[in-house]
Amino acid sequence: MAAVSTFLFENKGNIVDIDQHVDQEDGVFFMRVEWEVEGFALRRGELKPALAPLMERFAMQWELHFSDVVPRAALFVTRDNHCFYDLLSRHESGELGMDIPLIVSNREDLRAVAERFGIPFHHFPISQTTKPSQEEAEIDLLRAHGIDLVILARYMQILSVRMTDAFPHRIINIHHSFLPAFPGARPYHSAHRRGVKLVGATSHYVTEDLDEGPIIAQGVTPVSHSDSVQDFIRKGRALEQSVLSRAVWLHLNRRTLVHANRTVVFG
Amino acid sequence: MAAVSTFLFENKGNIVDIDQHVDQEDGVFFMRVEWEVEGFALRRGELKPALAPLMERFAMQWELHFSDVVPRAALFVTRDNHCFYDLLSRHESGELGMDIPLIVSNREDLRAVAERFGIPFHHFPISQTTKPSQEEAEIDLLRAHGIDLVILARYMQILSVRMTDAFPHRIINIHHSFLPAFPGARPYHSAHRRGVKLVGATSHYVTEDLDEGPIIAQGVTPVSHSDSVQDFIRKGRALEQSVLSRAVWLHLNRRTLVHANRTVVFG
Amino acid sequence: MAAVSTFLFENKGNIVDIDQHVDQEDGVFFMRVEWEVEGFALRRGELKPALAPLMERFAMQWELHFSDVVPRAALFVTRDNHCFYDLLSRHESGELGMDIPLIVSNREDLRAVAERFGIPFHHFPISQTTKPSQEEAEIDLLRAHGIDLVILARYMQILSVRMTDAFPHRIINIHHSFLPAFPGARPYHSAHRRGVKLVGATSHYVTEDLDEGPIIAQGVTPVSHSDSVQDFIRKGRALEQSVLSRAVWLHLNRRTLVHANRTVVFG
Amino acid sequence: MAAVSTFLFENKGNIVDIDQHVDQEDGVFFMRVEWEVEGFALRRGELKPALAPLMERFAMQWELHFSDVVPRAALFVTRDNHCFYDLLSRHESGELGMDIPLIVSNREDLRAVAERFGIPFHHFPISQTTKPSQEEAEIDLLRAHGIDLVILARYMQILSVRMTDAFPHRIINIHHSFLPAFPGARPYHSAHRRGVKLVGATSHYVTEDLDEGPIIAQGVTPVSHSDSVQDFIRKGRALEQSVLSRAVWLHLNRRTLVHANRTVVFG
Repeated sequence: MAAVSTFLFENKGNIVDIDQHVDQEDGVFFMRVEWEVEGFALRRGELKPALAPLMERFAMQWELHFSDVVPRAALFVTRDNHCFYDLLSRHESGELGMDIPLIVSNREDLRAVAERFGIPFHHFPISQTTKPSQEEAEIDLLRAHGIDLVILARYMQILSVRMTDAFPHRIINIHHSFLPAFPGARPYHSAHRRGVKLVGATSHYVTEDLDEGPIIAQGVTPVSHSDSVQDFIRKGRALEQSVLSRAVWLHLNRRTLVHANRTVVFG
Repeated sequence: MAAVSTFLFENKGNIVDIDQHVDQEDGVFFMRVEWEVEGFALRRGELKPALAPLMERFAMQWELHFSDVVPRAALFVTRDNHCFYDLLSRHESGELGMDIPLIVSNREDLRAVAERFGIPFHHFPISQTTKPSQEEAEIDLLRAHGIDLVILARYMQILSVRMTDAFPHRIINIHHSFLPAFPGARPYHSAHRRGVKLVGATSHYVTEDLDEGPIIAQGVTPVSHSDSVQDFIRKGRALEQSVLSRAVWLHLNRRTLVHANRTVVFG
Repeated sequence: MAAVSTFLFENKGNIVDIDQHVDQEDGVFFMRVEWEVEGFALRRGELKPALAPLMERFAMQWELHFSDVVPRAALFVTRDNHCFYDLLSRHESGELGMDIPLIVSNREDLRAVAERFGIPFHHFPISQTTKPSQEEAEIDLLRAHGIDLVILARYMQILSVRMTDAFPHRIINIHHSFLPAFPGARPYHSAHRRGVKLVGATSHYVTEDLDEGPIIAQGVTPVSHSDSVQDFIRKGRALEQSVLSRAVWLHLNRRTLVHANRTVVFG
Repeated sequence: MAAVSTFLFENKGNIVDIDQHVDQEDGVFFMRVEWEVEGFALRRGELKPALAPLMERFAMQWELHFSDVVPRAALFVTRDNHCFYDLLSRHESGELGMDIPLIVSNREDLRAVAERFGIPFHHFPISQTTKPSQEEAEIDLLRAHGIDLVILARYMQILSVRMTDAFPHRIINIHHSFLPAFPGARPYHSAHRRGVKLVGATSHYVTEDLDEGPIIAQGVTPVSHSDSVQDFIRKGRALEQSVLSRAVWLHLNRRTLVHANRTVVFG
C-alpha cells in the first residue's frame, strides 16, 4: 500500500476512489484504486511498465483498466424476459457502461426482444448430445466478438467446465434463491413447500460446481402463507433484476475481487 | 360479513381468496372476497341485482369486478426508461393482466421505446400556458380509450386537479423517496445532502395535493457516504421499479381500498 | 365462515380482528376471529357448548382462548444472553402478555440474570447418559407449573422426541441462519466460509427433526467481506432478538396456525 | 495516504484494518487505519510526537486511539426500557467494549433496572425552570466521571446547546422514525396517521438542532393497515435497539467521522 500510494503521489495521481481490505486469516491484502488520467505524470503506454517492477517486488497480482475502454458483454437468455429487459434498459440509459454485441439463447422465445433492440440474436438449441459442440461454437462466437463478460440472465442451461474454464470469473449468473438454500432447479417451488417467510436471489460467478461459485450480491423479499408459488415467482422477479444488475455493475466497475471462492466487493 | 358469507354459501360460491379488516378507531369494516364463477348459482347478469339489497341493508360501499375483464392502463412517461421497461416487461410476461392501449408523454424521448412495443405514443408538450388545454386533451383521449388506470412511470409533470378529479384513486405515481421525507423535486439530491443511510421509493394514488396521496407501497435500499448522488439514482432505480410494479399489481388485482387518505392493502 | 360469522352476528359479537386464508391446493380453510366479551350475548361458560355443534357440523378443528388468561412460558437458555434479555425486557414492558414462572438451563452462566429478575432458575446439566432422565425431570417441572409455551432463547441442546412430543407446536426455537441454509451447529462460521452477503435468523416450532419444523418468522441483515465471523455473530444478535420476539408475540396472540409443516401467520 | 502508509511500513506496522474515502465534491480525504502495537517499532509514548509533523505537513485533522483504553459511556434514559436493556446486554457480553459508570434519568422509573446491574443511577428531574441548573449539574457529573460518550437510550428530554456544546459529536440519540420524516414528538402516531408502509429508526449525533444532527445508522421495518399505533411501537422496538446499538458500536470502534453534518461510516 505504501508503495502504491507513494507511486501515485509522486506521479500526481488524483485519486477518485480507493478501497482496501486486509484478510487477517489468510494474510492477503486487497486494494482497488481509481485515479484520473488527466494531470497524471505518466502516459497510458508508460503505466504498465512503470508499475510492473513495483508489483513484482511485493508479489502482487494486479490488473490495470482504463474506464474509457468499454467492456463487451454477451447476454444468455432462455424464456423469462425480466432480467433481460432490465439489463437492456440500464444499458440504454448508459448506467452499465458496456457494449452488448450479441445475445445467445437455447430457445427462440426472446428473439423478437433482441431484434427490437437491434442486437444480433444467436440461437443455439442444446440437447444432451449436441451440448459439447454447441458450447464450442458459443465459445468461438464469444471469442470472435471479443466478449469480456457473459451474463446469464435467467439462462436455463447448465454450463459445462468447457465454458466456465474459457471465462474464469467472467460469467455471472442469477439464481432465484438465497444460496446455499434451494440450489438447483425450481427453487421457488422448494421454498414454497418449505414454508419460508422470505424468498431470495443470489448473483454469483459461475464455476465448475453449479450454484457453488463466489457470491457477488444477494437479496431477499418477504412472502407469506397467502402467497402461491406463482406469487413467489412474481415477487422474486424484481429481486432477481435488482440483484443481477447490481452484480453486473460491480463487476463492470472492477469492484469485485475473488479469493478462496469468496468475493471482496468494494461497493 | 355474516350476510355476505351466507349469501356466498347459499349460492355455492367457491371462495378463492378472502380478506377483511376492522378499523376499530373509525368503526369501518373492509372486506374483499374473490370466488369462482364456475359452479356459482347466479349468472353474471344476476349478480349485481342480487347483491344490491344486501349491500344497501348494511349501507356498504361496494364494487364488483370480473377477473376476465381486462383493465386498460395508460402509461405516462417523460425521459427515464427504467419503470417504463419494467412495466412493459411484466405486461409482456402476462403478470399484470392489463391492456396498455396508449402511452402519453410530455417529451419525445421515449417514443422509440413505445414504437418498439407497438404501442401508440401520444406527445403532449406542456408549458404553463398550454397545460390546461393539454390536460383536457389528455382526459379526452383517456376517456375515448376507456382507460381505467393511469400509471405515472416517472412522469415529470405535476397533474392539476382537473386530471386528479377525472380519475379519483385511479392514478398511481412513483415518487423516488421514502415519503413524507423529501417530497417535491430532486429527492435524491436532498437525501444525499442530508446524509441518509437508506434511500426510499413510494408509490401512491395521486390526489390534489402533490406527494400527499394514499400510500400503496414503499421500499428502501441502503446507501453510504461513498455513494454520490449518481449512485443514489442508480441504486434507486431497482427500488422504484419494484415498488411501482407492486403497487400496480395490487391495484389491478383490486387489493387496495382507500379510506381517510390511507390504503387498506390486502397483499 | 358463513356459519361462524352468522353466529357472531346473532350474538352481538363486536369483532375486533378477523383473518382468513384459503389453501386452494389442500382445500383447507383457516380462520381467526377475535371479538369482545363485553356486550356479547353468551357468557364465558356458555361459549364452548354453543360453538361445539357448529364446529362439528363443518368438521372444523378449533380452539377458543380468552385474552385475559395469561399464558405461561418457560425460557430455556445456555450462555448467550441477548435473546434472554430481550424477552425479559419485553416481558417487563408488558408487550408479550405472558408469565415467566421459571427458567431452565443446561449451564449455570445465566443464573445471575434470572435472579436479577426474580425468576426461579433451574439448572439441568445434560450429558449423553443423563439426557433422558433430565428431560423427564424438565417435563415434570414444566407440567407442574402449567407451562403453555417453551421458548428456546439460544438454548444449545438438541431436544429429544420425548420433549417435542410433550409440547407439540408449543416449543419455539431461534436458529441463527436463514433456514434451510446452514442448519445444525455454527451456522455463522459456515455462512462466513461460503461468503454470503446476508446473514439470517429463523424462528420455528421445534419438531422431531432438528431445524425442520414449521417456520414462524425469518429475517436477514447485510454482511460483507470485511466482516469476520465475530462480526457476523455481532450483527446477527439484533436479528435473532427481533425474529424470536416476533415469533413469540405471534404465538402468544394466537396468530399462528400449523398445517403440513408450514405456518399460517395472521400477522 | 502515501505518507501515512509509508510511515507505517517503515515502522513495521501490521495493518489490521484500513478504510479510506475521497469526497470529490469537497476535496476532503478521510482515512482510518488500525494496526497492531505488537511488533511496532515505536512505543506508545513515541507515537504522537512521531506522527505530529507528518499530520501537520498535510494539514490533517487526526486522532489517535488505543483499543485497550476502554471508553466510558453514560446512558440517559426515561421510561422505555428496550434500548436500555439491549445496551446492558451487549455491554455484559463484552460486545461494546465500554464502561458504563453511571446512568442518568429525568424520572425514577428505571432505577430498579440500573440497580439490578449495579450501576449508579442519578435522577435529575427537569422542569422548564430547573433545566439550566440541572444540565449544568449533569455536565459536572459527566466530567467528574471522565465520560467520553453520552447515549440517549430513549431519553425523552431535549438537550440544550449547553449540553451539546460540552460533548460535540459525542452524544448519540435514537429517534423512532426514518429521519427526516416525522421529526419531533410522537413519530409513530404521525406515521400511522400518514399511512406509511414502513416505519423507521435513526441514530444520529445530537447537535444544537433537534433531529438534524449527522446520521450514523438507519433502519426500517414493514407495517400494514392492520397495525395500530401500538403495533407500530412494538414493531419499532427491535428496530430502535438494533439501530442504536449499531451506531454505538461504530462510534466506540472509531468508525465514524463527521464532515459537513454528514458521517463517513467505515462499517
